[in-house]
Amino acid sequence: MGPPVPRSPKPPELDNFCAAMSTAGILVIGNEILSGKVVDINSPYLCRELRTLGVDVERIYTIPDEIRVIAEAVKSMSQSYDYVLTSGGIGPTHDDLTVEGVAAAFGLPLERIPGIEERIQRATGKELNQSQLKMARVPVGAQLIDSGDLWFPLVVVENVYVFPGIPELLRKKFESVRDRFRGVPFNLKRVYVTLMESAIAEDLSDLLREFPDLLLGSYPRIQEESFRVMLTLESRDACYVQRALESLLARLPADAIHKVE
Amino acid sequence: MGPPVPRSPKPPELDNFCAAMSTAGILVIGNEILSGKVVDINSPYLCRELRTLGVDVERIYTIPDEIRVIAEAVKSMSQSYDYVLTSGGIGPTHDDLTVEGVAAAFGLPLERIPGIEERIQRATGKELNQSQLKMARVPVGAQLIDSGDLWFPLVVVENVYVFPGIPELLRKKFESVRDRFRGVPFNLKRVYVTLMESAIAEDLSDLLREFPDLLLGSYPRIQEESFRVMLTLESRDACYVQRALESLLARLPADAIHKVE
Repeated sequence: MGPPVPRSPKPPELDNFCAAMSTAGILVIGNEILSGKVVDINSPYLCRELRTLGVDVERIYTIPDEIRVIAEAVKSMSQSYDYVLTSGGIGPTHDDLTVEGVAAAFGLPLERIPGIEERIQRATGKELNQSQLKMARVPVGAQLIDSGDLWFPLVVVENVYVFPGIPELLRKKFESVRDRFRGVPFNLKRVYVTLMESAIAEDLSDLLREFPDLLLGSYPRIQEESFRVMLTLESRDACYVQRALESLLARLPADAIHKVE
Repeated sequence: MGPPVPRSPKPPELDNFCAAMSTAGILVIGNEILSGKVVDINSPYLCRELRTLGVDVERIYTIPDEIRVIAEAVKSMSQSYDYVLTSGGIGPTHDDLTVEGVAAAFGLPLERIPGIEERIQRATGKELNQSQLKMARVPVGAQLIDSGDLWFPLVVVENVYVFPGIPELLRKKFESVRDRFRGVPFNLKRVYVTLMESAIAEDLSDLLREFPDLLLGSYPRIQEESFRVMLTLESRDACYVQRALESLLARLPADAIHKVE
């Protein structure tokens, strides 16, 4: 990761929305992702959820289980985005180094949390071993958020939310704190077009000249029978996206539109 | 992305392998991934394929369609890894900015390639429009590699391979150049364990003290009935991984081993 990324200048039409605009970076931690053993389904989930909440995910960064690399990435992302969500590396084994990496990012020592130790002991019914004791150590000053029916709290350090890599647990924990991630949701229209992308590319460029603040996506599909391109029109301003939609539909031949939704 | 990442010191037992060790970074380019509209299945594919070939993927970085961001990431990754593979952003539309970003990374101007223009014209049977002409511009000095039955060549600039985002096309192109990505493959053993991860974590730490160069992964599964943890033991040295496997099996109770493969 590099130096903090300057925010894009806000479009003038969106002045009244910008106070509430917020950004996020997702940090996926795990050799198993990089070596192709496990497919990361957490970042697609978080991207969808954060988008629904109106939070802009600006980067996803996938890195190995190395304290120095984790610390540098956490530090850089924490400075660049409103929220950082990490996934993975918080279990009891040798390659679970995320908590140490987050602590190093902020120059914080780790401290034992007796309440977590007691909960692990109650859950297992035994004396804790070294690896379980490790799970009860968090950066000094971290917020610990209890998450529904999960016995292990969510660890939050400044704007960094430390989620587990196991998808079922990540989702439960995210659900329990989703109210903390607030932005202004987008209004989205999808237009399915039967022409080739290269046949409409200039119309799209013209549309963007008329609506410079429109977020316009163009996604060719080569295995669909009924359309060739899915277009997405988005804005935080519902009227703006509606006007852009009408302008787009006027530009394209009527029989090139398979569906609008 | 930050400054070039120093390579890890090579383990002494692997001296004879290191000459052929090689690394890769994957750069996923596309607002549609970050906004949760499209799930990136290209980087998992590339991770699996590169792993099979013995190439270490060290980072996956997912960024928006912005020339400056693309250029900075390409430049940094190109300096840090032997190979950089980009995915997405090379079509005809306004948000296809990868080729311009790669050119900017290396300070290269773009040039028209008449051969590509002719091929687009033959494929479409029409005069090229502006957006199609854009697709025939590549950074000066780029290698153009014809890929099997695909009419559009793969663009390679220094160690950067520019793949399309459409998964079917990316795979065809990767297949056509896979011989270029050569490392020393890993030997992998998987051990499925019926105990909780926290019950074996100390055995794993002991194993790593005996076999410090072993790549050892531990992946808890909470929805499997027949085992609780999948362990992976890997090394480029087949004898080393076999000795580590034997040592691991001797450390764990026999009835805790569900399966070895």
